[in-house]
Amino acid sequence: MIEAAIISTGDELTTGRTTDTNAGFIADKLLTLGVDVVAILTVGDRPERLRWAWTEALRLAHLVIATGGLGPTADDLTTETIAALFARRLVTDPEVAARIRQLFALFNRPMPDNNLKQAAFPHGAVIVPNPLGTAPGYRLEVGSPADPRHLVVLPGVPREMRPMLVDSVLPWVATLAGDEPIGCRTFQTFGISESGLDEVIATIPGEGRWSFRANFPEVSVRVTVRGRDIAARLDAFAREVYAQLGPYIYGEGDTSMEVEIGRLLCERRLTVGVAESCTGGLVGHRLTNVAGSSAYFRGAIAAYANAVKEEMLGVPRALLERHGAVSEEVAAAMAEGARRVLGVDVAVATTGIAGPDGGSADKPVGTVCIGLAAAAGGTTRRYQLWGTREWVKLLASQIALDWVRRHVLGLPLLEIGRRDPVPAAPGREGVAPG
Amino acid sequence: MIEAAIISTGDELTTGRTTDTNAGFIADKLLTLGVDVVAILTVGDRPERLRWAWTEALRLAHLVIATGGLGPTADDLTTETIAALFARRLVTDPEVAARIRQLFALFNRPMPDNNLKQAAFPHGAVIVPNPLGTAPGYRLEVGSPADPRHLVVLPGVPREMRPMLVDSVLPWVATLAGDEPIGCRTFQTFGISESGLDEVIATIPGEGRWSFRANFPEVSVRVTVRGRDIAARLDAFAREVYAQLGPYIYGEGDTSMEVEIGRLLCERRLTVGVAESCTGGLVGHRLTNVAGSSAYFRGAIAAYANAVKEEMLGVPRALLERHGAVSEEVAAAMAEGARRVLGVDVAVATTGIAGPDGGSADKPVGTVCIGLAAAAGGTTRRYQLWGTREWVKLLASQIALDWVRRHVLGLPLLEIGRRDPVPAAPGREGVAPG
Repeated sequence: MIEAAIISTGDELTTGRTTDTNAGFIADKLLTLGVDVVAILTVGDRPERLRWAWTEALRLAHLVIATGGLGPTADDLTTETIAALFARRLVTDPEVAARIRQLFALFNRPMPDNNLKQAAFPHGAVIVPNPLGTAPGYRLEVGSPADPRHLVVLPGVPREMRPMLVDSVLPWVATLAGDEPIGCRTFQTFGISESGLDEVIATIPGEGRWSFRANFPEVSVRVTVRGRDIAARLDAFAREVYAQLGPYIYGEGDTSMEVEIGRLLCERRLTVGVAESCTGGLVGHRLTNVAGSSAYFRGAIAAYANAVKEEMLGVPRALLERHGAVSEEVAAAMAEGARRVLGVDVAVATTGIAGPDGGSADKPVGTVCIGLAAAAGGTTRRYQLWGTREWVKLLASQIALDWVRRHVLGLPLLEIGRRDPVPAAPGREGVAPG
Repeated sequence: MIEAAIISTGDELTTGRTTDTNAGFIADKLLTLGVDVVAILTVGDRPERLRWAWTEALRLAHLVIATGGLGPTADDLTTETIAALFARRLVTDPEVAARIRQLFALFNRPMPDNNLKQAAFPHGAVIVPNPLGTAPGYRLEVGSPADPRHLVVLPGVPREMRPMLVDSVLPWVATLAGDEPIGCRTFQTFGISESGLDEVIATIPGEGRWSFRANFPEVSVRVTVRGRDIAARLDAFAREVYAQLGPYIYGEGDTSMEVEIGRLLCERRLTVGVAESCTGGLVGHRLTNVAGSSAYFRGAIAAYANAVKEEMLGVPRALLERHGAVSEEVAAAMAEGARRVLGVDVAVATTGIAGPDGGSADKPVGTVCIGLAAAAGGTTRRYQLWGTREWVKLLASQIALDWVRRHVLGLPLLEIGRRDPVPAAPGREGVAPG
């Protein structure tokens, strides 16, 4: 097991102007190689702070991965700091310099001289190509041959850093981490809690390291195995995971609920439409986050006012008066209306009380009714959700999307939220009332 | 000027399971008091790593603010670590212990014994109340009277930590930071770049510290002043800011575009509706993120398919055929249609090419037309936006919302995006083509 430290550099991080997403991304990826992150050190663009970070990081770990400070301006100090700390002279790489000149020419822009700074590397560095920007990264071995330390330096722009890490750095880290093969599979789930997953996973035999990552309202589960027969052992784990958790797993690897729904709808040549009340447009927004969604998504009607539910979706006024807008009856009529007026194969509807006001004893904040209409008929259900307005909207949109997925796959409806609206132990995020 | 270090604790951070938003929140707030953050140290729940973090943080700064590790379980080690490092015995606070018991009783839950761990504090600690959870925080002075060091420990749950920091910790930090009064005002802007703002701000005379925070697609500008006549000097700055940037400023302090629009529409008793194509529901989603939005938001029609534009919004087929769905003519018809069918005072419409595919020479990816319809007539405009699909959608939704704001206030339309679709220097996030 090797250990790593991460350095995140930039005044934007130490002044709170930007949230650091790089360190978490790197830590998560390192974990798939069995590399443990001992610390993340974040400093601004100041020589003495960078020196502190590098000195401490190398004291803590044999592998240090840093992002930021590779830009062309005077406050980008990472390379100078490393060169000075390890007494390496800076060497300009002619190929990198030519590429930077070329990029500026391509965009018809004059190149400021200091941009060539990005072509200078500490002597001995191995360049890590940056397909999406001007500044390549690099790695460098320092220390004694008996106790080598490995430095990796990447740009701070996440869009550039991520492919560089995944395509160039991780395969090299894998060789560092030893000859022992390692592999993993990541299952994306919705509708079951982290502790619920944990209980199920605990019953699965076999040598694997399981980890969870909660990203409300979803949880991903990853299993990492080392040694022999990686593929066969991962397949065996996957069979067990699907056997026990099947309906909760919407995909594997880097994907999302809306991407998976898009794939399913395309495969089966089905179209989808939405009638939204409490989600206000969020379901449509999420469906259209997928490139090419116009192939299956025809439209969404966010009918917030009751008159709009009547006029645009044909929900009978009597139904609204008798059951209230937040009712399974109205959810059913909204879904059926959307299916008709949008001319789609499947329509899903949301109506609920997102809060923080508007609740009653009968229908407290978090009450959400979902409806689905398809050629074979309709289904509705009432859920008791919890949390802030934002959470109720997000969770309602997720359930609506999951209904579409389960409908297409012929799976039973989600049971989440059927439980009492009782918070778990006070003070635990994710389950307390908002 | 005092300096601070921040410690973020938790395995969920060093394994990438959770993104740390606490450190940035704290850094941003400290800056309003003129306190500079020298480093952020992030470690998992391991005694030796916590010892490293506390030792280094106190070597770097006189003030250390830490979050996390205050939970009831065995891997919550912050208090034990501090007690051991500074040779303080742990003392149980009877009031805190009683409150924890009470909270569990309130939720009808048995209290595990280890929850009382959260009522134990290092001798000498001053408790920082936690109105939203079981674990209070505390502060502690260590070191010699000639060179005191101040420790602040807060829970890791952001919802609990934030009010504790703002209500209890910051007022105390302000006294630490010296007797010199300090004050700030923060202006929220949209439609002008960070560098554009910087140019304008540079011309404003007077002694103030200006800082910018980009949160795509918005930028906030804050001015901090110290010394005498804080309020009068801030007012003078604000007058100058409004004189020079007025139409770009949509609000001050902790607010959002949708909250400000809601306030304006309520004040003027106007209703709003939306017709969305490329934004797919995002404008409606954002409007309904505001509690009480049902007072002015009636509905949004995400008409993705052309047939839905015709049938639900009454866009003439001839118009779609002649100009294409992405045209100012169709944007106008969508807005007018939404105004009519939703029965609202103001309707705004979006139609565009979010990408990554679907562009042409005439209408490249990022082409977005916005339309607005009101009693007095309609307006349309075509913008050339840039970036990923996600960014084009977000920026289009923001422009649509800003049109509503500017319409209600009688301001001229936004000029953003009228510029050529040329990216800035390659490799800079925020302006490069997606």
